[in-house]
Amino acid sequence: MFKSIIDYTKQTTPLVHAITNYVTVNDCANIILAAGGSPIMADDINEVEEITSICNALAINMGTLNKHTIEAMIAAGRQANKLGHPVILDPVAAGASSWRNAGVKRLLEEVKFAVIRGNISEIKAVYYGSGNPSGVDANADDIVTRSNLMQTIELAKELSKKTGAVIAISGEFDIVTDESKTYVIKNGHETMTKVTGSGCMLTTVIATYCGAHYDHILDATAAAVCSMGISGEFAYDEMVKNNQGYSSFRMHMINHMSQLEGETVERGAKIEIY
Amino acid sequence: MFKSIIDYTKQTTPLVHAITNYVTVNDCANIILAAGGSPIMADDINEVEEITSICNALAINMGTLNKHTIEAMIAAGRQANKLGHPVILDPVAAGASSWRNAGVKRLLEEVKFAVIRGNISEIKAVYYGSGNPSGVDANADDIVTRSNLMQTIELAKELSKKTGAVIAISGEFDIVTDESKTYVIKNGHETMTKVTGSGCMLTTVIATYCGAHYDHILDATAAAVCSMGISGEFAYDEMVKNNQGYSSFRMHMINHMSQLEGETVERGAKIEIY
Amino acid sequence: MFKSIIDYTKQTTPLVHAITNYVTVNDCANIILAAGGSPIMADDINEVEEITSICNALAINMGTLNKHTIEAMIAAGRQANKLGHPVILDPVAAGASSWRNAGVKRLLEEVKFAVIRGNISEIKAVYYGSGNPSGVDANADDIVTRSNLMQTIELAKELSKKTGAVIAISGEFDIVTDESKTYVIKNGHETMTKVTGSGCMLTTVIATYCGAHYDHILDATAAAVCSMGISGEFAYDEMVKNNQGYSSFRMHMINHMSQLEGETVERGAKIEIY
Repeated sequence: MFKSIIDYTKQTTPLVHAITNYVTVNDCANIILAAGGSPIMADDINEVEEITSICNALAINMGTLNKHTIEAMIAAGRQANKLGHPVILDPVAAGASSWRNAGVKRLLEEVKFAVIRGNISEIKAVYYGSGNPSGVDANADDIVTRSNLMQTIELAKELSKKTGAVIAISGEFDIVTDESKTYVIKNGHETMTKVTGSGCMLTTVIATYCGAHYDHILDATAAAVCSMGISGEFAYDEMVKNNQGYSSFRMHMINHMSQLEGETVERGAKIEIY
Repeated sequence: MFKSIIDYTKQTTPLVHAITNYVTVNDCANIILAAGGSPIMADDINEVEEITSICNALAINMGTLNKHTIEAMIAAGRQANKLGHPVILDPVAAGASSWRNAGVKRLLEEVKFAVIRGNISEIKAVYYGSGNPSGVDANADDIVTRSNLMQTIELAKELSKKTGAVIAISGEFDIVTDESKTYVIKNGHETMTKVTGSGCMLTTVIATYCGAHYDHILDATAAAVCSMGISGEFAYDEMVKNNQGYSSFRMHMINHMSQLEGETVERGAKIEIY
Repeated sequence: MFKSIIDYTKQTTPLVHAITNYVTVNDCANIILAAGGSPIMADDINEVEEITSICNALAINMGTLNKHTIEAMIAAGRQANKLGHPVILDPVAAGASSWRNAGVKRLLEEVKFAVIRGNISEIKAVYYGSGNPSGVDANADDIVTRSNLMQTIELAKELSKKTGAVIAISGEFDIVTDESKTYVIKNGHETMTKVTGSGCMLTTVIATYCGAHYDHILDATAAAVCSMGISGEFAYDEMVKNNQGYSSFRMHMINHMSQLEGETVERGAKIEIY
C-alpha cells in the first residue's frame, strides 16, 4: 500500500502550498521536492487564496506565527476547504504561550484540517487548549511509552473525532490515527530531534503525499511518517559510518527522502495496527 | 571574456544588497560569498535606501513578496537607479496571482532594471502582464525547445526593448539577450530543478557579477548563467559518483561555485551567439 | 574550566530564545542544538514575553531588523532582564544605516545585555553610535592587528564599563572582555568569513553556554568563542583534505560543534589573558 502511495506521488508531482515558519522553510521546500512534490511558500493575505487554488494541498505551520501570517493561514485554509484540498496543521510549540493557544483555537474553528501533526505535548495542547510548555520539544512528562501508549491512542482518537482530522503524533512511537483505525510506527531515530525541522519536514511530506491522495489521508499520512523515519534511520547509519555530526545527518535525511523508492518503505516500515 | 569577469569579481568583492524571499535567502547569501561578493539582506523601508547606497548592486526577488517588502523594493530600487547601481529582478511565480502581477507591474513602472531573470513562464507573465500559473516552476506548455527557440528569443528581445533590461530565461536552453545580441547557453543539469532556489541563487550571482561590471551587464549575466550551470554539472557528477541525493547536490553546487576559476568557465561554457 | 562549561551545557540542555534574522536562522537553530541547547524562535510581540519566560537565555540579532521585530526584542529583553536571564546582543551591520544606529541605541537604553558580540566595525558603531559601514563584514580600516590590539581592548573595556556587558569582538584576534579581565583568542579560520552566519551562530552558542552558566558569563562567552573557532579549524582541515568548497565547510563546522567535547576545546584553545 505504501509503495503505491510513494511512487504515485513522485509520478504526479503535487503542488504544495506551505505557510510556514522562517526557521525551517528551506528544508521544508527541499524535502517537498525530495518527496516528489513542488513547493510554493506565498504568505501574503492578498494572494494566498489564489495561490492555494492552483495547488493540491496546503500545509500550515505555526512555528514563527505572527499576527499577519495567521490571517493568511485562515484565508488560505478556508479556500482550500472550499476546493476540497487537504489542509495539514503543524501546531508548533502549541501550549507555549496563551496567544499561541488562541491561535490554535481560531485555526480549528475556521479551518477543517485533514491532518494535525505534532509531538505529544503539542497534540495535548491542541486537545486541552493549553499546555505545559517546554519549548518546541515534547515535555519529558508527556513522552509516549509502552505503558501509556493505549491511553495516548485514546486521546488521539478523541481529538480525531472532535476535529475530523487524522492525528499524527511524533515520538519514539509514532501514532497515526483516525476515529477508528490506528497505526503505531516505530521507524525513525532520536538524532532526528537533534536537527531543527524534522517535525516541520514531516508535516510537508504528509502534505505532499496527501496532495496526491485525497481519498486516502490516513494511509498517506502513515506512509509519510514511515518514509521520514526510514530516511532518518539511513541518515543515522551514514552519519555514524562516516564519523560525522548533526549537519551531515540533516543532509543525509533529505538525500534519502529523494532516493527512497516505495518498495524500500514498504519493506522497512515497522508498523502495528490497532 | 568570461574568465576576466569571474576573476575580477572575486578580486573586487562587490557588495550585493538582496531583498529576497525567506525560503532561499541563506543559499543566496552563501552563493554570493561563493561567487566572490559580500551579501547584505536588509529589507525595512526605513533603511533600504541607505543600505543600498553602500552596495554595488541590488537583487530584488519576489518569492515571498508581501505588502511591506514591495515598498522596500521600490524604495531601494529607485535609490539604486539614482546611483547607477545595476538592479536585478527575479519575478518568482509571476503569473500565479493577480496581486503578484500587479506587483510586477508596479516594480517595472517605478524601477529601471538592468537584468530580469526568470523561467519562461515567469518571463511570459512579465511580458503579457498575466500568466498561466503552475507554481514556481515553468509550465509544461511553455518549455523552450529547439523548435520554439527563435520565437522565444524574439519575445525576450521585445521585452528587453520595452524595459531596457537584459533578459535571462532559465531552462534547458538558457537565453540571455538584450535588444541586439543573444546568447543561448546549454550548461546546467535538470537536477537543479530538484532543489529549491537554483533560480534565486543564479539571480544573486548575476547581481554579484554585475556589481563588479556596470558596463558589461549582458556579458556579466551570461557569465553568471554559465558559472551556475557548470557548477550544477559538476554537482551532478559528484552526486552520482557518490550515490547521493538532492541535498548533497545543493551543497556540491555551492561548493563548486566557490571553487570555480574563470578559466574553467571559459572552457566549459556551451554557448551559441545569435 | 572550558571543559566543564561545555560538558555541563550538553547535560542541562538550556532553552534558548532567539529573535534573529531570517538569513541565518536555520543555522542558528541547528548550532544551538549542536552545542547542546534547544532553540525557540518566536518573534511576535504578543507572545515573546511568555516565550522568553520559559527559556534560559535570549539572543537578539539585528540582521534583518524591522519595525515589528525591534519592539519584540525590547519586550522580550525587558522580561528576560526581569527574570535574570542572560540577554545576548548581536548588532549585525551596526553603523550601516542611521535607522539601525537608532535601533542599537534604543536596545541599549531599554535592555541590559549580558554579552554584546560583533565584529570590530559593529562594536565601534555600538560604542560611537555611528559607523563607517562596509556591509556585514568588518571594515578593512578597522581590522584588529597586533599593533592596535591593546587599543582595541581598551575600547572594549570601556564599552563593557558603559553597558555592564561582556564584550566579544570577532576577528583574526577574538577579544572577550569585561571591565577587568580580557581573553584574547586566536582560534578560528578565515574561511569562517566565507559562509554567511558564522558570527550569528557564535552569538547563539554564547547564548547557549550562558543559558547554562548565569554566574560565569565571561568564561562561558570565551568558551563559546573557542568552541566555534576550533570547529572552524577542524572544518577547514576537512574541507581541504576532501578538496571541497564553502558549503561543505559550513556543514563540517556545525558537525564539529555537535561532536566537540569539553576536553577537545580545553586542549585546543589558543588564549592569552590580559
